[in-house]
Amino acid sequence: MESVNIKKLAQILNLSISAVSKAMRDSHDISKETKEKVLALATELNYQPNPYASSLRKHKSKTIAVIIPEIANNYFTLAINGIESIAQEKNYHVLIYLTHEDVKKEIALTKYLHGGRVDGVLISVSSTTTDYSHLHQLEENGLPIVFFDRVAECFNTVKVTTDDYESSYLATKHLIDQGCKKPAHLAMSDNISIGKKRKKGFVQALIDHGIPADESLIVECVNNDAADLDMIKQLLHEQRPDGVFAAVEQYALCVYEACQQFKLSIPREVKVICFSNLKTAAYLQPSMTTITQPAYEIGKEAAAILFKALEKKHFVLKDENIVIKSALMARASTMSDV
Amino acid sequence: MESVNIKKLAQILNLSISAVSKAMRDSHDISKETKEKVLALATELNYQPNPYASSLRKHKSKTIAVIIPEIANNYFTLAINGIESIAQEKNYHVLIYLTHEDVKKEIALTKYLHGGRVDGVLISVSSTTTDYSHLHQLEENGLPIVFFDRVAECFNTVKVTTDDYESSYLATKHLIDQGCKKPAHLAMSDNISIGKKRKKGFVQALIDHGIPADESLIVECVNNDAADLDMIKQLLHEQRPDGVFAAVEQYALCVYEACQQFKLSIPREVKVICFSNLKTAAYLQPSMTTITQPAYEIGKEAAAILFKALEKKHFVLKDENIVIKSALMARASTMSDV
Repeated sequence: MESVNIKKLAQILNLSISAVSKAMRDSHDISKETKEKVLALATELNYQPNPYASSLRKHKSKTIAVIIPEIANNYFTLAINGIESIAQEKNYHVLIYLTHEDVKKEIALTKYLHGGRVDGVLISVSSTTTDYSHLHQLEENGLPIVFFDRVAECFNTVKVTTDDYESSYLATKHLIDQGCKKPAHLAMSDNISIGKKRKKGFVQALIDHGIPADESLIVECVNNDAADLDMIKQLLHEQRPDGVFAAVEQYALCVYEACQQFKLSIPREVKVICFSNLKTAAYLQPSMTTITQPAYEIGKEAAAILFKALEKKHFVLKDENIVIKSALMARASTMSDV
Repeated sequence: MESVNIKKLAQILNLSISAVSKAMRDSHDISKETKEKVLALATELNYQPNPYASSLRKHKSKTIAVIIPEIANNYFTLAINGIESIAQEKNYHVLIYLTHEDVKKEIALTKYLHGGRVDGVLISVSSTTTDYSHLHQLEENGLPIVFFDRVAECFNTVKVTTDDYESSYLATKHLIDQGCKKPAHLAMSDNISIGKKRKKGFVQALIDHGIPADESLIVECVNNDAADLDMIKQLLHEQRPDGVFAAVEQYALCVYEACQQFKLSIPREVKVICFSNLKTAAYLQPSMTTITQPAYEIGKEAAAILFKALEKKHFVLKDENIVIKSALMARASTMSDV
């Protein structure tokens, strides 16, 4: 099928290109009869206005970018579904970009976003991002940015997160309440805003309960399953903690693997709790106690705020932290007296 | 910061706009000295060519669309990572679209893809898609399409799948070999190419082993956890199968839930096997026997073929079925004599 352009429509209808264009945009300059004729033919021939030409005219791409570190992660897939739920309502398209935790990729793709390709950005920064110039540049070019989950505190914009510090404090207290005398923490990189907060919550809970916050009981994982498993095995072997609070679900699954290899019983010898949106947490052997994050709601809220900024002419994104609470779901992996 | 355009660069350098544009594109018409001057200033001012204007000129968006039914699914997240691995290599951007199994959304977004917004499409069709006119229209407009996983047989293009029929036959035979006399099948919608093949593999294995293929032992799930759980509970209650082969991992997790509620022992009373890319399959209670699909490889292969079509001027996508084999991972959920 030959593709139909506006020139062709104009030829067939014996109208000027400008008249057809105005008719398509429902202009007052064009009579109702002409508009109906144009629309009928456009529908018949499946005419689609060229999106780039139309973007140039309106300076609107009707597209937002979502930048995330990875996709094989229940948290981010849920957050994307939350974002999508709003974008579809607003008739916006969502461009999903993965940085694979690599700041170089993050920089390359933010460069690509300059110049009108998208109208706004939702971002959860990579674990290797320590300098934010590339994101400041986007902001300076007038592109609204909303952070979610992994935020950059130095930006004067909205950041949507869960209560990372409080939930981590609660998770650690839960281990102590269930009888742990020597809990360990599997931490995210200190570069990551939420990693820092989760570690802080762990340390404070220990201090408040008279347990020394021994640095050797805090292991910073690297998001590589094999390497993380090795570090966790070393931790279990050398320190023999009686509880583990994992900042990320994947680290907790490595604890399950290590305990299976060492024939250590969860929860009798080691209790396990972690931040997780794993659908199968309840069916694990043993079922896993989780801090369940409102990932869908966080994505939805971040998107709703971005769209406010896009829709209202004089809406300015304020420096604001929006916190949506997580919930502790106690299951067998932290049970006492077993 | 004021945004820098090509006109501004030309003014500052006292060159024509066309000369700057040619210099940016490394044209032979422009001297090396001029090119260096232009490039230095463009770098200094962080000039980004307008992507839409440049797309209009080159008729290339350097973007591909990936259309999938859902994202909260390990198969698709792995497939996307496979697609991404190739796209990043080729310096292409990946637009991910979710149809949420709704053909109306699929139609709406394929309309949006007309007119140069993307250069090619990778698609796994929704379960409610029975008419393919919207995809034929894309093809007629010259957009290369490669199908993966859920394919439309009627298209003369490449389709990348796993060996759904053979794997389903093998899964069913495995249940029978492990002692099942009355296996049931939790099927996908018959609309879906792979759903049909998986059911066929199940039925054929029963016939070949002298077991009547009773229709009441085949339940078509609807991808709603609550509704699927109800149907599965009814199946377990009324038919009491001694084995279940689930076409989708989510259905198998509903079987785990139902057995927990009914206090039925897996694998003693009901054996379970399913298509799954669940990372936690080995840690479930009991660990779950799976048909593990090469999801990453399928995504990678589909993308590699699409890029061949995009890069070579006269490359035509042939009507070809590429099959990458799945692997049966036997675990506790199908163990005999327990």
